[in-house]
Amino acid sequence: MTALPASIAVFGPGLMGGSLLMALRQRSPQVKLGAWARREEALTQLSARQLVDFCGVDAAEVAEQADLIVLCLPVDHLPDLAEAIKGSLRPHAVVTDVGSVKQPVVAELESCFGSSGSFVGSHPMCGSEETGLEAARVDLYAGSVCVITPTPHSRADAVATVKSLWHAVGSNVIAMDPSEHDRAAALVSHVPHIAAALLVELVSTGKPEFRALCAGGFRDTTRIASGSPDLWVGILSANRDEVSSALGQFESLASQVRDALEKNDVTALRVFLDNAARSRSEILSAS
Amino acid sequence: MTALPASIAVFGPGLMGGSLLMALRQRSPQVKLGAWARREEALTQLSARQLVDFCGVDAAEVAEQADLIVLCLPVDHLPDLAEAIKGSLRPHAVVTDVGSVKQPVVAELESCFGSSGSFVGSHPMCGSEETGLEAARVDLYAGSVCVITPTPHSRADAVATVKSLWHAVGSNVIAMDPSEHDRAAALVSHVPHIAAALLVELVSTGKPEFRALCAGGFRDTTRIASGSPDLWVGILSANRDEVSSALGQFESLASQVRDALEKNDVTALRVFLDNAARSRSEILSAS
Repeated sequence: MTALPASIAVFGPGLMGGSLLMALRQRSPQVKLGAWARREEALTQLSARQLVDFCGVDAAEVAEQADLIVLCLPVDHLPDLAEAIKGSLRPHAVVTDVGSVKQPVVAELESCFGSSGSFVGSHPMCGSEETGLEAARVDLYAGSVCVITPTPHSRADAVATVKSLWHAVGSNVIAMDPSEHDRAAALVSHVPHIAAALLVELVSTGKPEFRALCAGGFRDTTRIASGSPDLWVGILSANRDEVSSALGQFESLASQVRDALEKNDVTALRVFLDNAARSRSEILSAS
Repeated sequence: MTALPASIAVFGPGLMGGSLLMALRQRSPQVKLGAWARREEALTQLSARQLVDFCGVDAAEVAEQADLIVLCLPVDHLPDLAEAIKGSLRPHAVVTDVGSVKQPVVAELESCFGSSGSFVGSHPMCGSEETGLEAARVDLYAGSVCVITPTPHSRADAVATVKSLWHAVGSNVIAMDPSEHDRAAALVSHVPHIAAALLVELVSTGKPEFRALCAGGFRDTTRIASGSPDLWVGILSANRDEVSSALGQFESLASQVRDALEKNDVTALRVFLDNAARSRSEILSAS
């Protein structure tokens, strides 16, 4: 197991980045921690909570001090930030991110950071519909799955360092090809997000008095629709090919069910519901 | 406020019926409680827990002893049971049910119990993906919404009695036309159930290794897909017209989102996600 580097900097201390600093401070107190944020205010909070040893609003200056850089910004903000720090990296620095889409991010960041192979993408499969440092918690990563997406260009030591980061905060690490990750994320996360938002929209089309009937099932099924629209526009747009293909597949499964309803084909309905209940148990026991 | 009748019998002591007996026993100890079940075993359990004062496997015999009868069976089992007890009702007995579909149930049961107006439909909007007496809990109804669906045929005292039942176990009662209820239930409950099952099916079409990525969001969004297939086949089939119409609307909203994805129309995606997040808060603050 590769040891954690001596110094780790989080860029963007929101829910994901803030939770990472908290977990590292608690579990790996020997590591020097740093942070970059756009606003001084977030950095003042981190310093007051003794979560960072160095920090600043100048990305290049923070980057110079870190052996491992974790970019915790929405996917559409990553290319600009990568440009801003690429000239300031330490010779053996490793860079990763926490974005929910990997193929376009990895392609862009690998090309930005050059052929050194210092960038390895990550997607920790945890989070919340809340955002910001206020929502951060020390155990966000504990027991969760983190997908890392090395490519043939990735330096072996960079892959090992990124793995050690996620292990250090309690995640189970799975390696996947970036495109394969995006196909999986469309199915298990991005289309479910859209479906939750569509269910809310569907109720909104009904009479206002229907709203009083939204019970616990509705609350749970649509919880993720309260996620940050800013963040999700970036995710859906970056993964639009995989998401629209999976959404098309979802629509076609829906129309098969509608067909069974119209024919009152109770056998087909039963098979559909039986399979779903059984598959859900199987899926969740594998996750 | 109408007082509860002296004697209330639950037919089908599963999750809904068992919870009703528990809540009535705790909150209205003066009421004589009874139960009918197909199997002796369930009745033995109820007696051992002192939840019933009279019970039996002969539906007509149990019906004779009750002023208020609550049918807690899946919707497709209601007509047979109604037939079995209709000759044994006390002169002023009131009958209600807890089915998730109302228009066909109310039409059939009103006609079965004759022009006396003794039947008033109910749909307590609570429950769980669990079923059976083992899952019953004393607080299932507390704070939940219960829709009652009186019609012009309903006797005023029967409506008042059914209202008093749900108030007694802590529910907020809303009255709605049966067809209106079914339209609302399709939007807020039946299509969300189908959507959850479709999301499970969608993941099942992907590679087995994708399953490891199903995180908390997926678990919540699909929770209701673990509901009893037996129960849900009956619900979806009984409400098939409203459900297929709402599902068609859902598909057409989905295809608008897919269109925005294909054009990478981030403005449309943002409007969609913003509206969903805002509407969800509004809907849940009304429920």
